[in-house]
Amino acid sequence: MSSERIQAFPIPDFPIVKPDDNLVKLILHTLETSKTELENGDILVIASKVVSLTENRIVSATDVEPSQKALEIASKNDFDPIHVELAIRESVEILRTDGVLITETSSGLICNFSGVDKSNAPEGNYILLPRNPDASASQYLKSLMNSTGKKLAIIITDTQGRPWRRGSVNLAIGCAGIAPFKYNKGKKDLYGRVLERSTVCQIDEIAMLAEPSMGQASKRVPVVIVRGYTYLASEETAKDINRPKHEDMFR
Amino acid sequence: MSSERIQAFPIPDFPIVKPDDNLVKLILHTLETSKTELENGDILVIASKVVSLTENRIVSATDVEPSQKALEIASKNDFDPIHVELAIRESVEILRTDGVLITETSSGLICNFSGVDKSNAPEGNYILLPRNPDASASQYLKSLMNSTGKKLAIIITDTQGRPWRRGSVNLAIGCAGIAPFKYNKGKKDLYGRVLERSTVCQIDEIAMLAEPSMGQASKRVPVVIVRGYTYLASEETAKDINRPKHEDMFR
Repeated sequence: MSSERIQAFPIPDFPIVKPDDNLVKLILHTLETSKTELENGDILVIASKVVSLTENRIVSATDVEPSQKALEIASKNDFDPIHVELAIRESVEILRTDGVLITETSSGLICNFSGVDKSNAPEGNYILLPRNPDASASQYLKSLMNSTGKKLAIIITDTQGRPWRRGSVNLAIGCAGIAPFKYNKGKKDLYGRVLERSTVCQIDEIAMLAEPSMGQASKRVPVVIVRGYTYLASEETAKDINRPKHEDMFR
Repeated sequence: MSSERIQAFPIPDFPIVKPDDNLVKLILHTLETSKTELENGDILVIASKVVSLTENRIVSATDVEPSQKALEIASKNDFDPIHVELAIRESVEILRTDGVLITETSSGLICNFSGVDKSNAPEGNYILLPRNPDASASQYLKSLMNSTGKKLAIIITDTQGRPWRRGSVNLAIGCAGIAPFKYNKGKKDLYGRVLERSTVCQIDEIAMLAEPSMGQASKRVPVVIVRGYTYLASEETAKDINRPKHEDMFR
């Protein structure tokens, strides 16, 4: 165990993903053309941007009429009113509107602008987060395992800010074939005492592990393979990472 | 660039770290006995616990008299009063005391119980966070680069919770030889437009990348080597990750 090596590397030469592309077919094709062999236990970390694109989660600015509320929030903060409007439409609750636009999305994620993004979208367009990233991950996993015969896992990630810490990081917003948490409950510490509880969000850690290989902006690496990480699956999904309201001390 | 492999692996067979040990000597010795060669560009990720131990940041319960305030917070939440007292002593501000004890520490970190920990401490003792993790990292870096002749970087990490997301993750609390952030400012997106701003907290990502190799509880892997990650150094340190008060929308 202690000599285990965890590796992250991109599927090389991934083509630009376009709306209506079949992402699984694209992954299988690129694995083949780049002579990349998947191994049992590999985790495929997929940028939410390409999931959104292939699920047609793109909105043109010309189709959006900002509401009065969106105009108010935009004017107060010097935000783009259409961006604000889309963030509101994607949200179930607005948490903060002073310098940020923190919302809870319909999938339970708490983030800035409901994760609606302008960068890396075609000019005049906005990319929304996948509607149900856990379901997308689950569907990809099924197809990829069927096609490859390998035992795999999928994590869908998005780059997000944090309340107390500067700088964005990659977070897991969907998963399949891997449990979101590893529980150290019952394990013993260095002094032989049973740990009362210690829950690590392993899919967030894997998401971050993959980000440097993914890069940002024009690097075009939407799928990263993580190898050598030992994990279990569970009934829980990425949605279970979101703290329920009664557990959230900062709402 | 796209075929770059990022790897994380432990320095194997690391001995149990004891108070007053010289951590740099211990690292050099263990590298030698385990026949592990460092390479230029390697990042050594070090668990704060062993930094604290070697800096004698251990307090015995018998030396601590809880204040009235500590007793109140402890009684309200069914917390250990000595644990609360130490968290208060390590803090410059108390932010929340309802079910959690969120504080700002003297080094600017916002976390639960000021990072004071009971697990993996000798029975009846508490481990405090290193007093100045950036300074410790800087000192280790100097010694290790002198001894090995390699260009290295150091990140000191601690496991912490997050306000909106369940499960702990490994975060960077000190660094040297590597910039905390990578700035994508000026880079272009997929459509050739200059990104307004995109700052990634790369040392938090590296901290998480290393955590699975570090493990928790009795796995005893205090130092992990991260190889194949391209980075720059800067004047900024891990302390700069902490949002200044006026930037913190959730205080």
